[in-house]
Amino acid sequence: MTTAPKLTHLDSSGAAHMVDVGGKAETERVAVAEGSVRMLAETLDLILSGNAKKGDVIGTARIAGIMAAKKTHELIPLCHPLLLNKISVDIDADKALPGLRVRATVKLTGKTGVEMEALTAVSIACLTIYDMAKAADKGMIIQDIRLLQKSGGKSGDWSAETSNGN
Amino acid sequence: MTTAPKLTHLDSSGAAHMVDVGGKAETERVAVAEGSVRMLAETLDLILSGNAKKGDVIGTARIAGIMAAKKTHELIPLCHPLLLNKISVDIDADKALPGLRVRATVKLTGKTGVEMEALTAVSIACLTIYDMAKAADKGMIIQDIRLLQKSGGKSGDWSAETSNGN
Amino acid sequence: MTTAPKLTHLDSSGAAHMVDVGGKAETERVAVAEGSVRMLAETLDLILSGNAKKGDVIGTARIAGIMAAKKTHELIPLCHPLLLNKISVDIDADKALPGLRVRATVKLTGKTGVEMEALTAVSIACLTIYDMAKAADKGMIIQDIRLLQKSGGKSGDWSAETSNGN
Amino acid sequence: MTTAPKLTHLDSSGAAHMVDVGGKAETERVAVAEGSVRMLAETLDLILSGNAKKGDVIGTARIAGIMAAKKTHELIPLCHPLLLNKISVDIDADKALPGLRVRATVKLTGKTGVEMEALTAVSIACLTIYDMAKAADKGMIIQDIRLLQKSGGKSGDWSAETSNGN
Amino acid sequence: MTTAPKLTHLDSSGAAHMVDVGGKAETERVAVAEGSVRMLAETLDLILSGNAKKGDVIGTARIAGIMAAKKTHELIPLCHPLLLNKISVDIDADKALPGLRVRATVKLTGKTGVEMEALTAVSIACLTIYDMAKAADKGMIIQDIRLLQKSGGKSGDWSAETSNGN
Amino acid sequence: MTTAPKLTHLDSSGAAHMVDVGGKAETERVAVAEGSVRMLAETLDLILSGNAKKGDVIGTARIAGIMAAKKTHELIPLCHPLLLNKISVDIDADKALPGLRVRATVKLTGKTGVEMEALTAVSIACLTIYDMAKAADKGMIIQDIRLLQKSGGKSGDWSAETSNGN
Repeated sequence: MTTAPKLTHLDSSGAAHMVDVGGKAETERVAVAEGSVRMLAETLDLILSGNAKKGDVIGTARIAGIMAAKKTHELIPLCHPLLLNKISVDIDADKALPGLRVRATVKLTGKTGVEMEALTAVSIACLTIYDMAKAADKGMIIQDIRLLQKSGGKSGDWSAETSNGN
Repeated sequence: MTTAPKLTHLDSSGAAHMVDVGGKAETERVAVAEGSVRMLAETLDLILSGNAKKGDVIGTARIAGIMAAKKTHELIPLCHPLLLNKISVDIDADKALPGLRVRATVKLTGKTGVEMEALTAVSIACLTIYDMAKAADKGMIIQDIRLLQKSGGKSGDWSAETSNGN
Repeated sequence: MTTAPKLTHLDSSGAAHMVDVGGKAETERVAVAEGSVRMLAETLDLILSGNAKKGDVIGTARIAGIMAAKKTHELIPLCHPLLLNKISVDIDADKALPGLRVRATVKLTGKTGVEMEALTAVSIACLTIYDMAKAADKGMIIQDIRLLQKSGGKSGDWSAETSNGN
Repeated sequence: MTTAPKLTHLDSSGAAHMVDVGGKAETERVAVAEGSVRMLAETLDLILSGNAKKGDVIGTARIAGIMAAKKTHELIPLCHPLLLNKISVDIDADKALPGLRVRATVKLTGKTGVEMEALTAVSIACLTIYDMAKAADKGMIIQDIRLLQKSGGKSGDWSAETSNGN
Repeated sequence: MTTAPKLTHLDSSGAAHMVDVGGKAETERVAVAEGSVRMLAETLDLILSGNAKKGDVIGTARIAGIMAAKKTHELIPLCHPLLLNKISVDIDADKALPGLRVRATVKLTGKTGVEMEALTAVSIACLTIYDMAKAADKGMIIQDIRLLQKSGGKSGDWSAETSNGN
Repeated sequence: MTTAPKLTHLDSSGAAHMVDVGGKAETERVAVAEGSVRMLAETLDLILSGNAKKGDVIGTARIAGIMAAKKTHELIPLCHPLLLNKISVDIDADKALPGLRVRATVKLTGKTGVEMEALTAVSIACLTIYDMAKAADKGMIIQDIRLLQKSGGKSGDWSAETSNGN
């Protein structure tokens, strides 16, 4: 990068503002984010055995994540309201962690990216898992919430695997 | 623990429901949670130099965290609405991380704990930091969101330091 | 219908997700829904006499229905946020019921239908009528909330009168 | 009833206002409401077979109903904000209808009743069922949403079975 | 005043936080606020003649103000969520202004005052009047929104008439 | 003006409804609004001295204004949901007032104007200033909230300076 990066949400005087996306083209945009909740092995068993019967911890967290993605612009002060085309949240058990891994995919035809929507879906799904299992295990840790990849828009495609940290 | 832990948000058939707190006493409750955003050293410098001038990344994230704590029951499906007495969010730079550390404290006189409110404040403050710096660094990672301590209520005091994982 | 109908909000594994509307064309869409609140004849008289003076039960219910249509995607987990072009709610007395009949019309230029917005407007208008008259009559029944017709979109026009139940 | 019933949400000039509950005692209050979604027998089969695998239509509608009860005061203009102690939503198949029956129970220790919260939970759960099955069956009808019983408060207990229509 | 006034929403380092009301007593609190919308005489006539028929500008603004008071803690970052006992909004024509005068009264039994709720109700009612009449008159001015009086709480009673500016 | 102005939010019977914008063209639209908070000179000094250190009153009010603009359609009953391109809020001290002057600029590519969004941003920023300084000065007055200019749309450009009152 030869030009200095800048914080686009601050104007020339340093004050926060919402970036003007009026001149941007409407393109197809996709963002994928992930995160996980690390817990005691017994807690994971408890969730999975409940899940085998009714699926409610994982099913509830999935719904919470989808609904939260739609609220992103109400939660993150400088995010634009967006007409999301699709939101999906996948939650898988990882016995080695031990815990649950959450992945969210958000799609949009619009003027700005949906990274924050995907990250918000992951965050709230993780918090919902914590909430539903905290009576058994208050020591759970929500970790490694990050963007995996994005495509579309002027800044082009980006992938966590091929980037050198930014 | 001699009785089996259980997932209090599932009823006897495994279906999700909101736990009845009608029989609980109103006590003074406090919860403290933390988390951090790990970033490139240059990104941290960028935020701090902006901050030296106007404080807007950190100031905006602090406000976003406080406002999100008040929305916890709208985001986490089975959380109760609560009349929070106090919310504070502290954000400090950690050059060694490198990144920003976020800590939230929530207080309530009420029938149920405020762990989720503190964790939600931390999560949304971290997402706001990500949003405001992502033009410079998409590889930031939100990590180690966890409860540090809670006091009040029937289940009593809990601290991450003295617990053995639950 | 020669192919089996399916529940489009469930993916191939049966998990809930938000349908991808990215590939759909933006068309002019209209949906009309109706419902009614059946009540004691005295309750209807009470509402209408109040209405003759100030119109407040019916006027308040109309506003509540319009505002609720705009919240549909916050209430129904898998609904898309939409830029509604128009919402109108009409409420008429029916002495034979006895009660009030509510009809909502919603218009959109967009990628997905507005059936849920029209049905939500009707439902919340009915609930508001119940709320404002319940001190006099707790036995009121909200009944027969249904889609009357829709137009626009790939699935084409549909009318309750000409359909054979689906 | 020897005194004339009145619409408590209208003041002496007929204008809408929020009733003053400041002088009311905090009592334990419970309300139970019900409603149903009538559909084609094939639609019910489709939901139940999906449900047998993952429970998602019924599970999603249950969560939507619980979350909506917490939003009642944002939807119904003259409802008071309340600190609900408990919300549960039960959804059962009725092959004879054919369709799904929804029942919601809401509890509060507070100054005003929770009838509207129970009715709102039922309404939004029914709308969510409609939304998730409408690709297969647009002719579904949401019917007979009503209060079953309430207890607590100055107006005392009330039951749909023993009332004579109010 | 012998001690220096301070901005209670800033902590000792100047950072914004929500004041801790945990130690405050629950008292009966009332706040009354007012404001007005100044407009062309023709615009007022237009509103009033519409009002003579259906009351919709004034009726809609009243409902908007009541609903906004319940959202105060979502709009004003450091306001506490509160269980309001009563909200009323009165709107009167003033031919001499010419325009509409809005007055809101909010009551609470709680730990903190309801000044912001009354001021928010007035502000949103005025904005709604502007919205509904702006097709005829974009030059309307919303003016003199202020607290008229408050009672209850440690800081005691206050009235705009008897204060010397604070 | 040779044709009589009308209140576009009322239908032919006088009932409130949301205007149909389906036939309008998507154009670039801008609105600028302003307002101010008049206060004691000491209160302004207090805010500015706090601001010199951390910027929190002004920074918090700016964020509150931006977030409120995104909520306009939830607050003003007949406003359309819109995909705002940009929101900025500028707040300046005016020692002569004495007080703070707030100006908001909102941009949209869409079918309807953003006057209400700009006016709402100003109103909530002013209320936030009041909230954060009210411990020192309850007599502050929010005044002269008005549209400065708008451009775009069928009704064309408008400026407070060149209009003759409408």
